[in-house]
Amino acid sequence: MKARVLVTLKPGVLDPQGKAIHHALEGLGFDGVNDVRAGKLIELDLADDTDDAAIEDMCRKLLANTVIENFKIERLG
Amino acid sequence: MKARVLVTLKPGVLDPQGKAIHHALEGLGFDGVNDVRAGKLIELDLADDTDDAAIEDMCRKLLANTVIENFKIERLG
Repeated sequence: MKARVLVTLKPGVLDPQGKAIHHALEGLGFDGVNDVRAGKLIELDLADDTDDAAIEDMCRKLLANTVIENFKIERLG
Repeated sequence: MKARVLVTLKPGVLDPQGKAIHHALEGLGFDGVNDVRAGKLIELDLADDTDDAAIEDMCRKLLANTVIENFKIERLG
């Protein structure tokens, strides 16, 4: 079973990497970019009997820093 | 209009960050993790008239290194 975890900075947390990407896009001539936020993507290949609670546990214990980051789990079947 | 870009390493490209996460998960006692791949997530807040071609152009020119990375664009409406 495949799952992916999307880790994003919480709103209000400064994101210098996103800001740098934003400026670079403008420098390349891309108009209409209002905001950019950078995050992490973690793709997991898991045993089929892994339940959502286990994945959430992985996120809380290792994959995300819940003080400053949100995470979202998406099962890909 | 919001969109997100998922940047992942191509199959076959070594992923030491993913390997490190995998080992750390095993060290924490999580069983049944077969593989972990680490990637990047870039959230874009774009003008409503931005078309897919423009986003793909951003990926090819800046957001992804297409020699070693794949990218996937998801519009969030």
